Amino acid sequence: MKQLEGEQTLMRIIFGESDHCGGRPLLDVLLELLRQEGFAGATALKGVAGFGAHSVLHTDKLLRFSADLPVVVEVVDNNDKVEAILPRLEPMLQGGIVTLERARVIHYQPGDKARR
Amino acid sequence: MKQLEGEQTLMRIIFGESDHCGGRPLLDVLLELLRQEGFAGATALKGVAGFGAHSVLHTDKLLRFSADLPVVVEVVDNNDKVEAILPRLEPMLQGGIVTLERARVIHYQPGDKARR
Amino acid sequence: MKQLEGEQTLMRIIFGESDHCGGRPLLDVLLELLRQEGFAGATALKGVAGFGAHSVLHTDKLLRFSADLPVVVEVVDNNDKVEAILPRLEPMLQGGIVTLERARVIHYQPGDKARR
Repeated sequence: MKQLEGEQTLMRIIFGESDHCGGRPLLDVLLELLRQEGFAGATALKGVAGFGAHSVLHTDKLLRFSADLPVVVEVVDNNDKVEAILPRLEPMLQGGIVTLERARVIHYQPGDKARR
Repeated sequence: MKQLEGEQTLMRIIFGESDHCGGRPLLDVLLELLRQEGFAGATALKGVAGFGAHSVLHTDKLLRFSADLPVVVEVVDNNDKVEAILPRLEPMLQGGIVTLERARVIHYQPGDKARR
Repeated sequence: MKQLEGEQTLMRIIFGESDHCGGRPLLDVLLELLRQEGFAGATALKGVAGFGAHSVLHTDKLLRFSADLPVVVEVVDNNDKVEAILPRLEPMLQGGIVTLERARVIHYQPGDKARR
């Protein structure tokens, strides 16, 4: 087992479960884009409640506790890679937010599969 | 599609699924409070396992792998808004933790709905 | 209700749902280790989609959108405790990543249970 350690960027993309892009679910489109661009990994978490994915300007009118649950897609990779993908996200997101944080990251590389 | 970008605060509130406040589920009370106070959005994630929501002092006795699953409520907003809500959370939380982090945040504002 | 506040470390361990360690699910082994080592709490979140838990080196070949969903285990505790556990994680993780971030943390201690 080898480890690669360093300072990287944690990007979180938060949007509504019902959001689409080009006729396809936004979640699928995002994961496909991230994989094609060579990101090491991505994790999609689905919320059980929430509000606001589409309601930056009109929270009161667009409250959706259960009608459109929030989805969070998390990516950890080097800062340049994350910066480069941001312009690609802009036309996809109809509402929602992206957060960017610096984090110390340790990548564990697959080694002896027999141990599993 | 317009973007609003800046440094904001990511607040995460972690508690037990069975926690209540004033006879109502804490999750509902929290989401209602956050919405009333004008937060742009909130996301509630439910854990599939965990321990410790009520066990800061007595972890060993209060281990609950499945009996009381953890819930995480995430909010991203400006620092003043987050600071102002903290005293309101204190009487609601019977155990649990709040984490606060600074993050670079990009808000995407709803534009042409026809694109969805 | 008492509060303990301070700067702590948020550790997130991300791996595949099917990962095992010593014949047992890695998630169970991790939660047991963290509890035994006296961590105040841990939260396990299961992804609904993702890729890359095992694919640091071979993302394209090992894409697993649904076959092996990602799991995120989150822990918040003091920095020394987190640093001390890192060498224990290394032999357990066959792929996956660990992220470490500093966060301001408020621990709420259980008080009057009658209020619940």
